[in-house]
Amino acid sequence: MYNVVGKVGLPSSCVGGYKALRSMSSETLSGRFSVSDDTLLAVAREEQIEEAALRQRVTAGVIVILGEAGGAVKPLGLGAGLRVKVNANLGTSPDFADLDREIAKLEAALAVGADTVMDLSTGGDLDAIRKVLRQRCSVPLGTVPIYQAAAEAEDRYGDFGKIPVSLLLDVIERHAADGVDFMTLHCGITRASVEYVRRDGRLCGIVSRGGALLAHWMRMNDAENPLYEHYEEVLGICRRYGVAVSLGDALRPGATADASDAAQIHETMVLGELVLRAREAGVQVFVEGPGHMPMDQIAANVRLMKRLCHEAPFYVLGPLVTDVAPGYDHIVGAIGGAMCALAGADYLCYVTPAEHIGLPDVDDVVQGVIASRIAAHAADLARGLPRAADWDAQMSRARVSRDWEAQAELAIDPGTLRRRRGERQPRDPKVCTMCGRFCSMKLFLDDEQQ
Amino acid sequence: MYNVVGKVGLPSSCVGGYKALRSMSSETLSGRFSVSDDTLLAVAREEQIEEAALRQRVTAGVIVILGEAGGAVKPLGLGAGLRVKVNANLGTSPDFADLDREIAKLEAALAVGADTVMDLSTGGDLDAIRKVLRQRCSVPLGTVPIYQAAAEAEDRYGDFGKIPVSLLLDVIERHAADGVDFMTLHCGITRASVEYVRRDGRLCGIVSRGGALLAHWMRMNDAENPLYEHYEEVLGICRRYGVAVSLGDALRPGATADASDAAQIHETMVLGELVLRAREAGVQVFVEGPGHMPMDQIAANVRLMKRLCHEAPFYVLGPLVTDVAPGYDHIVGAIGGAMCALAGADYLCYVTPAEHIGLPDVDDVVQGVIASRIAAHAADLARGLPRAADWDAQMSRARVSRDWEAQAELAIDPGTLRRRRGERQPRDPKVCTMCGRFCSMKLFLDDEQQ
Repeated sequence: MYNVVGKVGLPSSCVGGYKALRSMSSETLSGRFSVSDDTLLAVAREEQIEEAALRQRVTAGVIVILGEAGGAVKPLGLGAGLRVKVNANLGTSPDFADLDREIAKLEAALAVGADTVMDLSTGGDLDAIRKVLRQRCSVPLGTVPIYQAAAEAEDRYGDFGKIPVSLLLDVIERHAADGVDFMTLHCGITRASVEYVRRDGRLCGIVSRGGALLAHWMRMNDAENPLYEHYEEVLGICRRYGVAVSLGDALRPGATADASDAAQIHETMVLGELVLRAREAGVQVFVEGPGHMPMDQIAANVRLMKRLCHEAPFYVLGPLVTDVAPGYDHIVGAIGGAMCALAGADYLCYVTPAEHIGLPDVDDVVQGVIASRIAAHAADLARGLPRAADWDAQMSRARVSRDWEAQAELAIDPGTLRRRRGERQPRDPKVCTMCGRFCSMKLFLDDEQQ
Repeated sequence: MYNVVGKVGLPSSCVGGYKALRSMSSETLSGRFSVSDDTLLAVAREEQIEEAALRQRVTAGVIVILGEAGGAVKPLGLGAGLRVKVNANLGTSPDFADLDREIAKLEAALAVGADTVMDLSTGGDLDAIRKVLRQRCSVPLGTVPIYQAAAEAEDRYGDFGKIPVSLLLDVIERHAADGVDFMTLHCGITRASVEYVRRDGRLCGIVSRGGALLAHWMRMNDAENPLYEHYEEVLGICRRYGVAVSLGDALRPGATADASDAAQIHETMVLGELVLRAREAGVQVFVEGPGHMPMDQIAANVRLMKRLCHEAPFYVLGPLVTDVAPGYDHIVGAIGGAMCALAGADYLCYVTPAEHIGLPDVDDVVQGVIASRIAAHAADLARGLPRAADWDAQMSRARVSRDWEAQAELAIDPGTLRRRRGERQPRDPKVCTMCGRFCSMKLFLDDEQQ
């Protein structure tokens, strides 16, 4: 088995996944999840890895595939040995429920290269918004059904804690039937893990909306998390519609001081159990992770999360490596995301400059996607992905030859480079306004070519 | 000795410096550098460390102090166990030599918290520009004299390679006499190290302007680097005027593909020799580092640089962890700078969004300083600096109590948070437009307080 791993260039950070893979019998190694051969082939080509290796990893659950070949959504792989992916969160809020604005944000996110999009709408006609976004979204789309269940419960019963289980399952099925590719489901927050939040006097309590809603529900109903209690039914829906589960981290730390505490780790251990049950049920599954976290804890967290969650693909929200920079959290998240991905995370949820301030606008979406794409690509480069190094080398060659149009074409955001060059042009178009005739690359190259 | 270290909370990344300190006799442990007791005391208070420990580290050369107590410039410490500092580069270029614009950039850099400023001017009346910036700059000021020497040589002899050694030394003395606190001097690039650039066919050759100028000089004059050959005279000037030397990394990689190559490491080894000679001459010295570098090489590089350079404070330019993001290099540099500082770097030179495009404007300066301050603070937090954790905890408390004015006061950039809150106000002023009544912190807290 390790020879196979070696051939396809699996980074050392993913080796753990192979323990899971090796422990499977040959019987379970085929047809576990409903991923077609065409889809596998499309992803193998896109990622430039061998189809057999991809199939093994999908079967082992260390890679998840979203979307279907030949459908409206181009299939996308997440996980061990693949390019790190970036998600953009969209969606209305109770204060701003403007579908046109959300469509503009969707188009902006796709234009700057978001690999997936999530609709987190909480305001307006949620069914209608989701259907429109689904129709216009050419990449895998995720949702968080608990938001809609809470909003409908509030409308019907006057309290968003009064969500009947039947309503929760109904909303999940509605999302699935609309063709969403994955759903965030906060199945791992339990009464026991919330107790740790209280015991330790967490600075920021619960900062996940889904988590806070479920904690509220558990308190009001004096009962266990319905998404945990009814997990088999949830999996049944996901299996029927081919939806992947993104296990939400309801107890992710919302302050660097709260990182890696007992509540977080307890929930992670429950998520590990839920990963195994999803795989058993033939449902593809990946796991969401923190949150706010000082840099020195990142590598340990990624390894622990992946280990406890049986090497399922790891989808990180941030992490934000400091709490003090509202307005610049896309930069804070890029630092944390890059380090997480270097340590083995597979999928970065963007953070926008609007984080901790308000609902993002179109420019926030653009800035968030680009910052996360930089983090993801920096990790691809450091993890040894050959195409990543090629891209950087091409840019470096364009730079040393001072071919500005080639640089723009290769830039992660061509428009910004062209616009800025246009605003203030150098006297000598072969150099830039920083160094002018003192251009070091020109000077060294001219000397060498004499 | 280690008890002392333990008491003042020296991070493990700085332990190497103590080998240097322990090997010094008690005689050399006093009065090695011209740093007054008042200055030491001011820095010890500012950094909240014991004065005796600070004095030992300054004497050992693992901390450098810029500025003088009671003078126009508030003294600032760089190095082992201190807060990570941020520098902002200003200065005219041949294409844009507008003193008023540089003054505006200086004021912007100071307003957003740059710890030091460098004047890299290469266009206009360089003596006059420097004098004005010196007069208006309340923080330590650095310069790069080789730029002016090259510009004057070009004016007088028609080629900026024709710098007489006497002119070079004269410019250095002019800068020193004007009261600059530190100078970048590319003393470590030698004919042997340039040979490695050729041998290895570096993708981007030499990207340091000072480095390219000196390589050009060495070729034209068929002679060794004059800053290396005349290092003792350079040190004599610096000693007389109390100027610290920032040993420039003339061969820093300008492409991620060029990182950690023989040219870079050869120069670093020469810099190590020059660190010892500066300390011997009673001149405070620190070392500049790369450049462009994939993330996986950062920790190894920082440790190697510090080891080879006898634990002198390490001043990093970037590093840029990918080459493909012109227009966003402040984010790329924040990722690299944060990781470098976590690994032990002491001082971050900002990178602005204009990097690789042109001369930065006022907004670029602001964005660059803030991005670098985020990186520096994230590293302070991860390195265990108590004040860093206090700042984050205060912000987290303001956040959970939804005290928006307290959040703005604590924010690294209060203006941005206030402006954005003002632009789109939530219906309920205690929450934000993202979550509205679904605010997780409000929900959890309200439940807990019942």
